[in-house]
Amino acid sequence: MPSDNRSNPPGEQPPTLSHVDERGNARMVDVSPKLPTAREAIASARITTTPQVVSAILAGDLPKGDAIAVARVAGIQAAKRTADLIPLCHPLPLDCVEIDIAQAADNALAITCRAKTTARTGVEMEALTGATIAALTLYDMGKSADKAMTIGPITLERKTGGKSGDYQR
Amino acid sequence: MPSDNRSNPPGEQPPTLSHVDERGNARMVDVSPKLPTAREAIASARITTTPQVVSAILAGDLPKGDAIAVARVAGIQAAKRTADLIPLCHPLPLDCVEIDIAQAADNALAITCRAKTTARTGVEMEALTGATIAALTLYDMGKSADKAMTIGPITLERKTGGKSGDYQR
Amino acid sequence: MPSDNRSNPPGEQPPTLSHVDERGNARMVDVSPKLPTAREAIASARITTTPQVVSAILAGDLPKGDAIAVARVAGIQAAKRTADLIPLCHPLPLDCVEIDIAQAADNALAITCRAKTTARTGVEMEALTGATIAALTLYDMGKSADKAMTIGPITLERKTGGKSGDYQR
Amino acid sequence: MPSDNRSNPPGEQPPTLSHVDERGNARMVDVSPKLPTAREAIASARITTTPQVVSAILAGDLPKGDAIAVARVAGIQAAKRTADLIPLCHPLPLDCVEIDIAQAADNALAITCRAKTTARTGVEMEALTGATIAALTLYDMGKSADKAMTIGPITLERKTGGKSGDYQR
Amino acid sequence: MPSDNRSNPPGEQPPTLSHVDERGNARMVDVSPKLPTAREAIASARITTTPQVVSAILAGDLPKGDAIAVARVAGIQAAKRTADLIPLCHPLPLDCVEIDIAQAADNALAITCRAKTTARTGVEMEALTGATIAALTLYDMGKSADKAMTIGPITLERKTGGKSGDYQR
Amino acid sequence: MPSDNRSNPPGEQPPTLSHVDERGNARMVDVSPKLPTAREAIASARITTTPQVVSAILAGDLPKGDAIAVARVAGIQAAKRTADLIPLCHPLPLDCVEIDIAQAADNALAITCRAKTTARTGVEMEALTGATIAALTLYDMGKSADKAMTIGPITLERKTGGKSGDYQR
Repeated sequence: MPSDNRSNPPGEQPPTLSHVDERGNARMVDVSPKLPTAREAIASARITTTPQVVSAILAGDLPKGDAIAVARVAGIQAAKRTADLIPLCHPLPLDCVEIDIAQAADNALAITCRAKTTARTGVEMEALTGATIAALTLYDMGKSADKAMTIGPITLERKTGGKSGDYQR
Repeated sequence: MPSDNRSNPPGEQPPTLSHVDERGNARMVDVSPKLPTAREAIASARITTTPQVVSAILAGDLPKGDAIAVARVAGIQAAKRTADLIPLCHPLPLDCVEIDIAQAADNALAITCRAKTTARTGVEMEALTGATIAALTLYDMGKSADKAMTIGPITLERKTGGKSGDYQR
Repeated sequence: MPSDNRSNPPGEQPPTLSHVDERGNARMVDVSPKLPTAREAIASARITTTPQVVSAILAGDLPKGDAIAVARVAGIQAAKRTADLIPLCHPLPLDCVEIDIAQAADNALAITCRAKTTARTGVEMEALTGATIAALTLYDMGKSADKAMTIGPITLERKTGGKSGDYQR
Repeated sequence: MPSDNRSNPPGEQPPTLSHVDERGNARMVDVSPKLPTAREAIASARITTTPQVVSAILAGDLPKGDAIAVARVAGIQAAKRTADLIPLCHPLPLDCVEIDIAQAADNALAITCRAKTTARTGVEMEALTGATIAALTLYDMGKSADKAMTIGPITLERKTGGKSGDYQR
Repeated sequence: MPSDNRSNPPGEQPPTLSHVDERGNARMVDVSPKLPTAREAIASARITTTPQVVSAILAGDLPKGDAIAVARVAGIQAAKRTADLIPLCHPLPLDCVEIDIAQAADNALAITCRAKTTARTGVEMEALTGATIAALTLYDMGKSADKAMTIGPITLERKTGGKSGDYQR
Repeated sequence: MPSDNRSNPPGEQPPTLSHVDERGNARMVDVSPKLPTAREAIASARITTTPQVVSAILAGDLPKGDAIAVARVAGIQAAKRTADLIPLCHPLPLDCVEIDIAQAADNALAITCRAKTTARTGVEMEALTGATIAALTLYDMGKSADKAMTIGPITLERKTGGKSGDYQR
């Protein structure tokens, strides 16, 4: 698969897939043998629209900070509800959630969500969920002006803490 | 802005932005003057990963349909919770939610969510939320094998019903 | 299958299973072609424990009505959350939920939940969910005295309204 | 009450009922003096229907694993929401939830839910809630074919950890 | 009771209390005989703190609109969740929710919540819940500066629609 | 500001406002550097109505303890959902929630909510939310008899534990 630069090098096993028991049934992975440790994850999402909508969101028809503020609150609240939304996620006591929204191009905004916990498993899904729902909220705020707004890419940028080691995109 | 094929033609006003009152404060738009009508929306989301993970999701290490099934359930449940997640969405009595997940490339899956309602406002956000949470669930199922999985583009494909008319991407 | 008095008579087709599309994928059934009509369902649940715990619940160590009151509130609230709990249920605007809890034997209590709606689909699941969560709440209230408490049978007693006709157990 | 083999032997005090303060008011028991310890609980629920519906669920009209998969996801998600449903339950950081669904007779399925936590109080209610909502979901999937489906008995099978000692049904 | 200007005039019956059945058990009142009509309610809440905190909220250390924006979003979302919070409330399809926050004195802010529905029962509780949670959110935003912040009075200002007639405080 | 006995003495800095980052954006404060400690908070809320409604709630038309019981359950459940309602609150593993409701005058009831946790941040908002939702529930129970019921003052009475020290109103 030479065209896929993320495939495993020859001779290496692909990492295993969790969330399935030996009979293929979905389950929440048992994290009880792990110790709680400090963990952090950062995810990003981009939303592309017209320059007019970007301007309106940032400074124009929408009062300064307001659309941004609604999306930020939505993202923080969604991060806290991740285990309710993603069926096999563990409920986590979040120590911190931050949402940052900035202009990425004349027709695009970049959303970053940083989540931290002290727990037996990581906060990647919380960071991704926070960034994503913030993006969907911006879509909702702007959709009367541009239904063609596009969300993505949504990616995990970085994670630290946990036995599987750090990850940097 | 010649490179942006979605900008408004010269001389045309951009559509107005809802969700803000005259002082710029966020609010749920008043839909009480509208009559309930049949409405439908279809949204799509793509998730790109390694061919191995796509294979595992579709047929391999994961039993047929299972990862898909978890994501489908998550998407349906999230669509029902849209008004809880997106601050300015109206709660809607959903008549139907369907999630379809299919291979889009050797390293990508395409998720489609169709939502229907009989209500005073549209179901675009429900369709988008359903497709998006299904994608995040696939990320969660596969992240032990590939943390670089990328979600997007997420787009509204089609909407019908409502005073603002039909929309086809 | 002569020993199963609920099997279909010879020559009759069993009723079809909904919730699955032509490819076997779970989905919320499309109820948009139906008209909203008045519907009602009654479900029951029994909980069996020791006579001491029944007495304590009804009149003894627990002040009159209190354990009963907590279970009743829990059942009503759970009925309202049915669509959040049962993945393929439609969200319904409930017109009424009532929970009744009465002694059924010296060591058993009978819980009845009646739910009403004006909607495109029935309220069986709401009635069943209300009765069941009330029973689980009684278990929780009494489990320090009797961990062997047993819940069941839980059954649909009656439903009226809707195209599929009335049902009486 | 010689016919009730769970009544207390003569001369023994029945265990006390928690969840009520000295004036009989419902309250969440104060668990702050306890230390967090590893705890596990297993609960079971049975659902009885026609052999046709059991066959359809397991292998027939419903594609392999699908109805089962929806019920499993519903059970896992419900276990995570136990403190939201059962008024006097403490919110717990669940380490693991597993739902197993197997044929128990030609006309019955057995559902088992195992829950684990590291907390100041037990996970009995989480295991019971997970098993119960999975059973209600199977009812919802099959009710178009058999409204007489019966849920129960629902019981706590086993609990380990915590000051009150282990319990085996 | 001459000092209570809200007591009933002599010879008049006090209005009856709903939410209780003939045996005194809590229940959701049956609204199915009623027709859906347009209804509106306005509630208000006041929060009193130091002039410094009021200034910081309105214009000072907190960027313009931000604390206000968080409280407004929280109030709107809480209004949508009223039936989840107030046990005997009916779930309502809200047509509109607006939160207004303004200075009421040098040391006080006034919060107003307006809610509208087309339903079989009123939206008083939605308006009250929206105003109240917005006030609690302002407390949360400012509590590091002033733990003595006081919320109240919270009152229903006005309701229109429904058989019981309009109400103006 | 001589009339405000809560203003800061001359020469003293007012305490800083948390929940805002250096650019004024709302965020969940990062509590990960703190250690979990035992914390407790007590909040109170008052509801004023007619003596008739107070009597009905306490002993009269409403069966003994029932309206009180519904409000108590609502308050406990709301305390557990605080992080879902107040956008910048951290999710906390509550160790205990108690709601007390007592007569405060012939036309008023006093609600007290005590919450305890072992966590990195305090439980003030949980105690305030529990007391407040219990008060709103009493309003809902009594509003058919008195729409002029008034809620407030709602105050934090006491908090212990945590780096910022104890607080007594």
